[in-house]
This record gives sequence, structure tokens and C-alpha cells, in this order.
Amino acid sequence: MPKLLLLSQDPDSYLALLQAALPGLEIVTAPAADCELAFGDPGLLKDVIAGLPNLRWLQSTWAGVEPLLNPALPRTYTLTNARGVFGPLMSEYVIGYLLLHERNMLQHLASQQQNRWNELTTGTLRGKTIGLMGVGSIGAHVAGAAKHFGMTVRGFTRASEACPDVDVYFHADLPAFAEGLDYLVNILPNTRETRQLIDSSVLAALPAHALFLNVGRGSAVDESALAEALSQGRLRGAVLDVFQQEPLPPDHIFWRTPNLLITSHTAAPSFPADIAALFIENYRRFVNGQPLKYQVDFERGY
Amino acid sequence: MPKLLLLSQDPDSYLALLQAALPGLEIVTAPAADCELAFGDPGLLKDVIAGLPNLRWLQSTWAGVEPLLNPALPRTYTLTNARGVFGPLMSEYVIGYLLLHERNMLQHLASQQQNRWNELTTGTLRGKTIGLMGVGSIGAHVAGAAKHFGMTVRGFTRASEACPDVDVYFHADLPAFAEGLDYLVNILPNTRETRQLIDSSVLAALPAHALFLNVGRGSAVDESALAEALSQGRLRGAVLDVFQQEPLPPDHIFWRTPNLLITSHTAAPSFPADIAALFIENYRRFVNGQPLKYQVDFERGY
Repeated sequence: MPKLLLLSQDPDSYLALLQAALPGLEIVTAPAADCELAFGDPGLLKDVIAGLPNLRWLQSTWAGVEPLLNPALPRTYTLTNARGVFGPLMSEYVIGYLLLHERNMLQHLASQQQNRWNELTTGTLRGKTIGLMGVGSIGAHVAGAAKHFGMTVRGFTRASEACPDVDVYFHADLPAFAEGLDYLVNILPNTRETRQLIDSSVLAALPAHALFLNVGRGSAVDESALAEALSQGRLRGAVLDVFQQEPLPPDHIFWRTPNLLITSHTAAPSFPADIAALFIENYRRFVNGQPLKYQVDFERGY
Repeated sequence: MPKLLLLSQDPDSYLALLQAALPGLEIVTAPAADCELAFGDPGLLKDVIAGLPNLRWLQSTWAGVEPLLNPALPRTYTLTNARGVFGPLMSEYVIGYLLLHERNMLQHLASQQQNRWNELTTGTLRGKTIGLMGVGSIGAHVAGAAKHFGMTVRGFTRASEACPDVDVYFHADLPAFAEGLDYLVNILPNTRETRQLIDSSVLAALPAHALFLNVGRGSAVDESALAEALSQGRLRGAVLDVFQQEPLPPDHIFWRTPNLLITSHTAAPSFPADIAALFIENYRRFVNGQPLKYQVDFERGY
């Protein structure tokens, strides 16, 4: 039976979950040369995988695996990420912040703090158009939530057109994709192709009433161009969970940019129960010699 | 062809919509004794229907028709309300405020105002249990949205068990219904049976981490008991759109109650395009002698 290295900021939760489901599996929490399997946070595993010569499979607890994509690190193992479990959480985040905006929740709060009854007119998601950059498992889930609330859904992807909840696909010409959107949501991973993709030309193509949300990676955004668009009122607002540098540096312009909400990379946390279930499923596939789910292509980067 | 009295706080929008769809219909905006049809806000129509001896059908622009249920007013006409159109708006409101709560949006905002990166753990709607008091067309729609986000749905109703998105129905014993709920949502209309239904015994049955939302009518709530439960931390929070007296009086205790959000009766506004479509549909039924949709039972009150 192969030996598993577990390396996580929350090892106790994972240990309990794995031991309950896979009582025969030998689990260590410190690197050992004979570990054939690894499970954990890419930010921790990147420092030890060079010392795991027998590694055959690594299951990441995160969706993003950038730390493990460093070309100096070994790639002679199968890397799987936690792709399948963040869709519901991301959908909650996106729909929640769209509703915060449409329902004027912060304006209601401000009125309340002044003891003021204020019959603000409300917006609605129904009939609005949302553009999703990235239509993988997360994007497809967000598309389903958007459809539930009666939105029109545009998808920007270079991959297949497999999501039934996307009304129209774009594969190039991001400004054309952005034109007329009420909401633009970036869900793209950090790859060479996605860096600085959301630049001044894309922001200029968005209507002034549009809202931009970033739950993918900060690297996809020209942060100066975004701060400028918000400061000049050329964009209604932005909700950012991810940034080029995290934690966001104390002197970053975003702390002083109007109509910007910062959520400190909390949109889709890895709940141990979800991630452990995913590992267990893949582990059963591994011992049965079946192909693993959610494999990462080291070259593509996701 | 029957003559229509249109009485609304927004007559121009309705006039344009009706004239475009029903060019032959004669519409007046001041009461005339020969009006057989009326369409408008119950709060305005209640003052004039005694002077409409030929009234055969009145379409309300609101869901709640309390002003027209005064026993001193005539009831010799068919009353229809705007029951069918508020489901999506109410669902947005309920889901939006549940997510404001679960995603710690106000805490994130407070951190941001202190320039502080704060990786708050987030809650999720998935796996939570929501209790809906009232499972008519609005409640059924909220139930569908709750299911979309993976919640378990309890329905409290004295009517039929027709909603496929409700997992379990209760018809009596409100404290038993409330026990173990993560969220309690009141959607009940104002009737004799619903007054002060949410009293200290129901609030005591809710877990301390529960959230209470009221989008039905303020009359359903013992407001003193609710303020006390919130002040003593026996309830996590409340989001109230409706109140026993509206606008909420400036000296009302709710303005000083902790963990309470007030949204000034804006949860489900009557958008003229929606309500006009509903009138037009019912008008076609009326002229063809078909039964009208969304009829109100004067005795039941909804």
C-alpha cells in the first residue's frame, strides 16, 4: 500500500477525514523519501517535492496550483487539483455581491444608520447580462446560478462550448465580449495567456454602469487601469477577491479606490470535508488503476 | 367595451404600457361611475371604490390588498392581486441577505475601511436549513432558489403541499417548525390568522445562530419580542422589510436594535412592465369570459 504525505495548514481535519474513510492508508505529515502520494496545499508542497523521488500522484487542496508549476520543480508525477468543489462557493460569492449591488444593501445600511426610512428603488438580476471569463467547472456553475436568476450569460473561453447555461460564446476579441455587459466576472486561472488580459481596452468597452468581479487570479488584471477607471467613474464598481500581490500591500492604490470592495481571497475556501471527499474518490481510482479526475496539464497550467 | 379606471402612483408608465398592448381599451385616471374595471394601487383605490357601482373586476398592482379588505367596502367585484410576479424579486432579496450574512460582507467592508487584509472564514448556504412561512407563489419561488443553493427547505402552510422544492411541510406547531432552522423567512400575508404568529415562543425555538427575515407583513411579528431576542443575543440577526407601522416611526426600538437590518419595504417593488403584463393577461381572460388568475378570497384575505 502506498504511503501518503499530508501537508496542509489544517492537517488534523484532513487526517481525521482520511483515517475514517481509508483506515488502511499509511499517512505521514513530514516528508519521507518513500512517499508515493502527496495531498495538501501547493504553497507547502512546493518546498518538499524535490525530496520525494517516488512521488506518483499529488492531490492539491487548492484549485490554483501555480507554486507547483515552477519549471525548476519535478513534473514526473500526476498532479490533480481541487477543481470540482469550488463552483457552489464561487456562485454564492458572485450572486451575493451582484445582489449587494442591485439591492443597494450598503445604501440601505447607511440610511438605517441615520434612522432614516428610505424607499430606495431596487435593481434586479433578471434580464441582466453577465460575462464569464473562464467556463470550466467553476464558470459552468456560476453560469447555472446566473440562469437561475434569469440572466443572459456570455462565456469567454478558448476551450469547448460544453456548458448548456452559456447563451453565447466568445473565443477572442475581449472588448467585443465586454461590450454591453452588466457584469464582468473573471474566473480564469493564472497562465501566460491570461496575464493582464483585463486591460484598459476591455475596461473601456464595458458600460459605465457595469460591475467587475475578479475571483480568478489577480494577474489577469491591469490593476492601474482598473483603479483609474473606477476613480474616473467610467465603471460602476469592482469586487476583487484576488490581487497581483497578496496580501494586498498596505500602500496599494486599491485601498483608496472608490466603489471597490476587497474580500481578501476568501471567495472559495477549501473546506476539508469537500476536498477530502475529492481525494478519497481519486484515491480509489488510483488504487484501481483508473484515470484520475481533475488532472492538471503542467504546460497549460490548469 | 368596458371602461378602465387606472389609479397608481406611476400612472404614466402603466398608461403607456396598456395603450400599446390594448389600443381599444378606454382608460380614465379619475373615478367615473361607469367604470367596470379598475387597475391600480390598493392604497389609492380603497378611497374611490364605493363610488364605482358598476365595478366588476379590480386588478391590484400590489401583492398585499389589505386596504381593500376593510369590511365597510363593497365586495361585489372580482379582486385579483399581483401574486405571480414577486417571486423572483423576493428570491433575490432573501438569497442576497442570506449571502450578505454567510459571506461576512459587512465584516469585510469594515476591515477594508481599516486598510486591513482579513482572511475571514466564510459560511455557505449549502447544507443549511431554511424555513418558509407561507408557500404560495412567492414562497415556492424562494424554495426553488434555496434548492438551487443546496439548502434543505421546510414549508409552513395551511394550504396544499404543492411545491416540489419543499422537503418537509408543517401545518401547525410553529416552534417545532422553527427548531433547528438556520434561517426563518416570513412570507405570510396579513390575515387574522397570521397576526403575532412569530412570538417569543417561536423566537425561543430558533437556534441562537439563526437569522430571521420578514418579507411578508409586519403584523406577523411580535416586534418587542424580536427586539429583545436580538438585544440579548438569543438570535444572530434579523433582516426586516416590513413593519407593523410603516414608515417605521423614528422612535421605534428597531432603530436601536443590534444585528438588525431595515430595508424600508423595498424587497419586491411593483415594476410596471411586470404588473401591466399581468393585467393584460387577465384582461384577455376577462373579455373572453375565462376565470381570472390570482383571485383574492375576501374572507381568507389573500
